[in-house]
Amino acid sequence: MQYPERIETRFEKSNEELELECTSWRFAVETNNLSPWKTIPEQCGSYVKDYVMGRGYKVDLERVSTEAGIYATSLQLSADGKDVWVFDVDETLLSNLPYYADHGYGLEIFNPVEFDKWVYRGVAPAIEPSLKLYEKVLNLGFKVFLLTGRSEKQRSITTENLTKAGFRSWDKLILRDSEDHDKPATVFKSEKRSKMVEEGYRILGNSGDQWSDLSGSFPSDRSFKLPNPMYYIP
Amino acid sequence: MQYPERIETRFEKSNEELELECTSWRFAVETNNLSPWKTIPEQCGSYVKDYVMGRGYKVDLERVSTEAGIYATSLQLSADGKDVWVFDVDETLLSNLPYYADHGYGLEIFNPVEFDKWVYRGVAPAIEPSLKLYEKVLNLGFKVFLLTGRSEKQRSITTENLTKAGFRSWDKLILRDSEDHDKPATVFKSEKRSKMVEEGYRILGNSGDQWSDLSGSFPSDRSFKLPNPMYYIP
Repeated sequence: MQYPERIETRFEKSNEELELECTSWRFAVETNNLSPWKTIPEQCGSYVKDYVMGRGYKVDLERVSTEAGIYATSLQLSADGKDVWVFDVDETLLSNLPYYADHGYGLEIFNPVEFDKWVYRGVAPAIEPSLKLYEKVLNLGFKVFLLTGRSEKQRSITTENLTKAGFRSWDKLILRDSEDHDKPATVFKSEKRSKMVEEGYRILGNSGDQWSDLSGSFPSDRSFKLPNPMYYIP
Repeated sequence: MQYPERIETRFEKSNEELELECTSWRFAVETNNLSPWKTIPEQCGSYVKDYVMGRGYKVDLERVSTEAGIYATSLQLSADGKDVWVFDVDETLLSNLPYYADHGYGLEIFNPVEFDKWVYRGVAPAIEPSLKLYEKVLNLGFKVFLLTGRSEKQRSITTENLTKAGFRSWDKLILRDSEDHDKPATVFKSEKRSKMVEEGYRILGNSGDQWSDLSGSFPSDRSFKLPNPMYYIP
């Protein structure tokens, strides 16, 4: 037999525990402590939804943008035009939150066919704090290279979407070519950074929501990890 | 003129805002998004205290240990005895929380004289989840290298403290020699990892509470970032 008070107490404690557990899981995601994962933990579904739809995600995005901006402004750029800031696209410049809102915020296994349909609509909104940083680094004189795991086939829709979202100019948009499709993002992106360095560019800043945007070889002088508790790309 | 309800609402909102702001700050710390910092934000004093003294820190430490253990167990080690796990010491194996509890949990600027007195007492307790991981990797057959920013002069007290805390054996204990004292930790630790690789060792795992333990050159195959919202070492 159970007493109502006891049930209530258990329920409250369980909520607090869940908050603790899911915050800890999010910390493990953001620090890259986890093994590759395919979906968010079932019990953290509401937590992740509340975070990305609420102020937590916004505040985190704003902080990353501000910190990156302070760093960018602190640098003395060379006159040779070889100083580069690298941006990832999805969940870094463009937000696919409208798609993920319809697909359980990471609870569902990634469906590339459905996601491609969303990409081809070309309506992903800008992540506003990233747009602010983007304009700042352009104004400071950085070369801006966009390095995305999207396919070369999606070049024109990606260009269209970025432009519509307010990203008006860039120096390179590097997408995955046919020979890159089987490479993990870390390998693909490291190879492309290696090429930049070969060509004499200096990668001073790098913004991405995945560690596969930021780690690997030829890393940027400083990397800025945007939050993303919804999915993992190796 | 202000109405009591309004004041109360403002106060509640301000607490919620503070929680949001300090959690966001903690994530920025743990993802290495911040510029070098000397003290925690004044307004996050209570937040950091509650986190490190409460269950949040414990749960996070346990998760890092568990994830690292799963990875360690998944590896097939070679027979040549060259597979290495690197551990940092302070806030990774040993906890200086008793010291920081007496010094504002990061609110005070680091005082090397006072901290050294604490180190020479040799009473820092083990971080229990790390001790569990430590024993696991030893049992799995890893070589265990301790790589710490502590001074060579502190070798004997460090050995004594580690032993007393339950860390019973290791293959190397690498401390800062006189020529290393002016090097940032990232440089010192990268050089030491470089030497390990030169000697034919394979660094498969690395546990540390600072990004300067984990990033730089010759990084480990996988790195595990332990939480530390109290101080920053470049």
